[in-house]
Amino acid sequence: MNNHVEILDTTLRDGAQGEGITFSVQDKLAVVKALDELGVSWIEAGNPGSNPKDMEFFRLASSLKLENAKLCAFGPTRKKGLKPEEDAQVLSLLQAETSAVVIFGKSWDLHVTEVLKVSLEENTAMIAETAAFLNGKGRVVIYDAEHFFDGFTANRDYALSTIKAVIDAGASRIVLCDTNGGAFPDTIADGVNAVMELVGSKDVIVGIHTHDDAGMSISNTIAAVRAGCRHVQGTLVGFGERCGNTSLAAVIPSLEIKLGFQCLPEGKLERISDLTRKVAEIANVAVPDNLPYVGAHAFAHKAGMHADGILKVRRSFEHVDPSLVGNDRHFLMSEVGGRSAIAERAKKIDPAITKDHPVTAALASKLKNLEAQGWQFEGADGSFDLLVRRELGRYKPLFGIEAYRVVSEHPTGETIACSHAWVKVLVDGQHEIAAAEGAGPVNALDGALRRALKHFYPELEKVRLSDYKVRVIDGNAATAAKVRVLIQSTDGIQDWTTVGVSEDIIEASRAALVDSIEYKLIGDIERRFKTYL
Amino acid sequence: MNNHVEILDTTLRDGAQGEGITFSVQDKLAVVKALDELGVSWIEAGNPGSNPKDMEFFRLASSLKLENAKLCAFGPTRKKGLKPEEDAQVLSLLQAETSAVVIFGKSWDLHVTEVLKVSLEENTAMIAETAAFLNGKGRVVIYDAEHFFDGFTANRDYALSTIKAVIDAGASRIVLCDTNGGAFPDTIADGVNAVMELVGSKDVIVGIHTHDDAGMSISNTIAAVRAGCRHVQGTLVGFGERCGNTSLAAVIPSLEIKLGFQCLPEGKLERISDLTRKVAEIANVAVPDNLPYVGAHAFAHKAGMHADGILKVRRSFEHVDPSLVGNDRHFLMSEVGGRSAIAERAKKIDPAITKDHPVTAALASKLKNLEAQGWQFEGADGSFDLLVRRELGRYKPLFGIEAYRVVSEHPTGETIACSHAWVKVLVDGQHEIAAAEGAGPVNALDGALRRALKHFYPELEKVRLSDYKVRVIDGNAATAAKVRVLIQSTDGIQDWTTVGVSEDIIEASRAALVDSIEYKLIGDIERRFKTYL
Repeated sequence: MNNHVEILDTTLRDGAQGEGITFSVQDKLAVVKALDELGVSWIEAGNPGSNPKDMEFFRLASSLKLENAKLCAFGPTRKKGLKPEEDAQVLSLLQAETSAVVIFGKSWDLHVTEVLKVSLEENTAMIAETAAFLNGKGRVVIYDAEHFFDGFTANRDYALSTIKAVIDAGASRIVLCDTNGGAFPDTIADGVNAVMELVGSKDVIVGIHTHDDAGMSISNTIAAVRAGCRHVQGTLVGFGERCGNTSLAAVIPSLEIKLGFQCLPEGKLERISDLTRKVAEIANVAVPDNLPYVGAHAFAHKAGMHADGILKVRRSFEHVDPSLVGNDRHFLMSEVGGRSAIAERAKKIDPAITKDHPVTAALASKLKNLEAQGWQFEGADGSFDLLVRRELGRYKPLFGIEAYRVVSEHPTGETIACSHAWVKVLVDGQHEIAAAEGAGPVNALDGALRRALKHFYPELEKVRLSDYKVRVIDGNAATAAKVRVLIQSTDGIQDWTTVGVSEDIIEASRAALVDSIEYKLIGDIERRFKTYL
Repeated sequence: MNNHVEILDTTLRDGAQGEGITFSVQDKLAVVKALDELGVSWIEAGNPGSNPKDMEFFRLASSLKLENAKLCAFGPTRKKGLKPEEDAQVLSLLQAETSAVVIFGKSWDLHVTEVLKVSLEENTAMIAETAAFLNGKGRVVIYDAEHFFDGFTANRDYALSTIKAVIDAGASRIVLCDTNGGAFPDTIADGVNAVMELVGSKDVIVGIHTHDDAGMSISNTIAAVRAGCRHVQGTLVGFGERCGNTSLAAVIPSLEIKLGFQCLPEGKLERISDLTRKVAEIANVAVPDNLPYVGAHAFAHKAGMHADGILKVRRSFEHVDPSLVGNDRHFLMSEVGGRSAIAERAKKIDPAITKDHPVTAALASKLKNLEAQGWQFEGADGSFDLLVRRELGRYKPLFGIEAYRVVSEHPTGETIACSHAWVKVLVDGQHEIAAAEGAGPVNALDGALRRALKHFYPELEKVRLSDYKVRVIDGNAATAAKVRVLIQSTDGIQDWTTVGVSEDIIEASRAALVDSIEYKLIGDIERRFKTYL
């Protein structure tokens, strides 16, 4: 048997069913890019028939140039009594214009008779006819056998008969789902074995989809792969209904490092910590610190004896080398930063910078300080670029804010609130003051600052803020907590992101706005004159 | 074989080795009481030889009246070249005056020769002599075989010989530890089987201690119990080195409900959600929302089809009944949810509301409208409650905000920015105005509003905002984008969450603050007078 396991990420579908997880269309496009960069085989990107936002996404996504991944649209089998070609949800799967579609059907007789309330025969027909129809339209059909393991336990013959029917109808992947998340690895292995036997020598890949309701989604996925599955579904961070789906970030390293399977293209495993944080950041949540392999604590050693053991023999207290997954070892008192990663990024400003360059060490220590205060440069390439320039002495400020005042008020007798701001800037010894109203205090400040600066830098006319994210860092301090603001800007040609941190959201936004404008102006100068400093 | 599994909780020892976890002596006493209430058999409460705080704790703990649990002191075997009675750390285990002591020794030859740097024979003698000495002093000896599974894989004969020696020396429990957390369930089962054979008919209990570095601590624990272990170590919430220890809250329910073992006294399992939150609260961290069985999301259903299925047949989307572990089923109000879920929640306000009640339809359409504008009631139970009350006509406002003004400024010549606010409220025809400074505009507004209202509602003194989240809804509009603010509040007895949406972060925060205060005041009135409207 071959050792290649294809990965399907469903962050944008099952992941979006997790509590507190929502994605805008722009977020979805950004997640797709990150997953493609990681090198997953398939991205289950939404349910076009249930959600107009998802249909809009598929329209925009069709112009993305993906290197590794293919997009899939997800939806149910046909409704009872309809033909597939009469069912709007089935037709919407075609309208998404993806090369593959994922359809889900019922394997558990209880669901068929008590929830769907159709006969067992009609359920089988619903599955097979939908698969045949989509297959006939040239789609790769991935079939999710919902509640397969519960169905296999309750009525083995019926569960297997639905699988046989959908194979005969042309499905190319049969994905066995532990939808309720309560199965144990031995049940998983039994179910996979039975389906492998059914598949025999046919050209069909068997897959696995697990949830973490009993804390065993990872073991269940591994048990399934050992029993023959070569398609694994999950969500990178582990988002998903209830306790979440299998975290791909936690299971892929075990499959690759410990069991010798190949899930991602060569060289991609060491990107997994990085890209997991990126996807979490887009969803505006933190990667759980204790997430295996990629969490911030995964290689953090607290007990003195453990630190001591590691300094003698690395593997004495580490089950794998953290660099294999792009994570870092931390000791509570003597931190070892990720210098290679820093040098890699600083090279963009000065190609002479290496891991051992003194600037790299200085940046590592500055980064550590700023991160302890809540800054984070992971997604903020623009601010990181400015940080490197400052450290290299290749920076001088292009403007200063002398003073500002932002007022948000709901005056007596009025029905709505309003915000206005003025800003006074200093450029080359010249002052300029400007005011603006805005939809909220940050927007007013942004407007006033741009107006004041346009006087000196008319090229700012083309700059537009394309995304604005706010993250409360220490929620426990409630409205007095520190916030981190991330601003994405665009001038129509390139995008860049900057960051600001403060207990005061206005100050955090000001810092990110100033970085955004400086990054743009410095870049323009360098492009125009081939040099800036 | 009997079906009783004894539980040893090590929250106060291995748990305290987790990053960010520290306990004062008073905290430790409170954790002991909670664990005793849950009914664990053993509480590993500290390392008296390494830590004066732990010795002080053992002195105070000796006067606790425990109903179920016995305390254990934890420490290493004797140092090389010393007799046990000459080793201060071994003697400190006696000074703790617990009925049982847990000692740990090395099973992995790599650790013996490369980390401890003693001969294999000396290591075995260190283990056996320490066990014999403590046994001779009347202590129940629990032996933690550190790195047992790595040792078993590397040098099986040596690992087993250390176990044989400690059994002969009188240890009553042999606990096999996957210290680095990277073992797989099949290795665990092999190791346990070998030790079970060694134990034979002797009166020795074999135990298991796992870590979550490969995300398999729970499966590993279960594999060990199935292979014969009748002693399980872990930490209730899952605190511990790196990715943490096995969470007892996540594994005990599977052992009891799914496998028929008895871990806790009769009737205690339904306290586990409650007591897990209590222990987490003492440690000043939140229980992870996705923790199996006991987390806030463990039985939270978002997809409409899932909610609909559950209302037809509970087990269609629930692997166990949440009441067995004292947790609650939730339906998340969202665009993917449906009427069944709305009715289920609205019943808490008026038990007469059903899926087909006209109020349910009205709420569904209102919810859809509000969600299209960026509201989200998924986590905002407080605001949803108020929405239902308004729809039912069971609501009148308890106060109004007449006017407010929030100023954030960075005056010329100053080095820092500041924020201040005033708010004018109207309650029962009476006006009150108050002002406050704050760390940022929202904090200033919050402070001024509370000051003004405390005049009328002194009970607000007890209310504290415990979390504040901001999410930009449509990042594309950048700083003019709508933001959604979620505020979690507590009065020390209950927690509630409210939501506000606006293009203006001040207005969004105001809406969520007003809902938070109203929810509290209405709840208090209803409790006091058994009715509100």
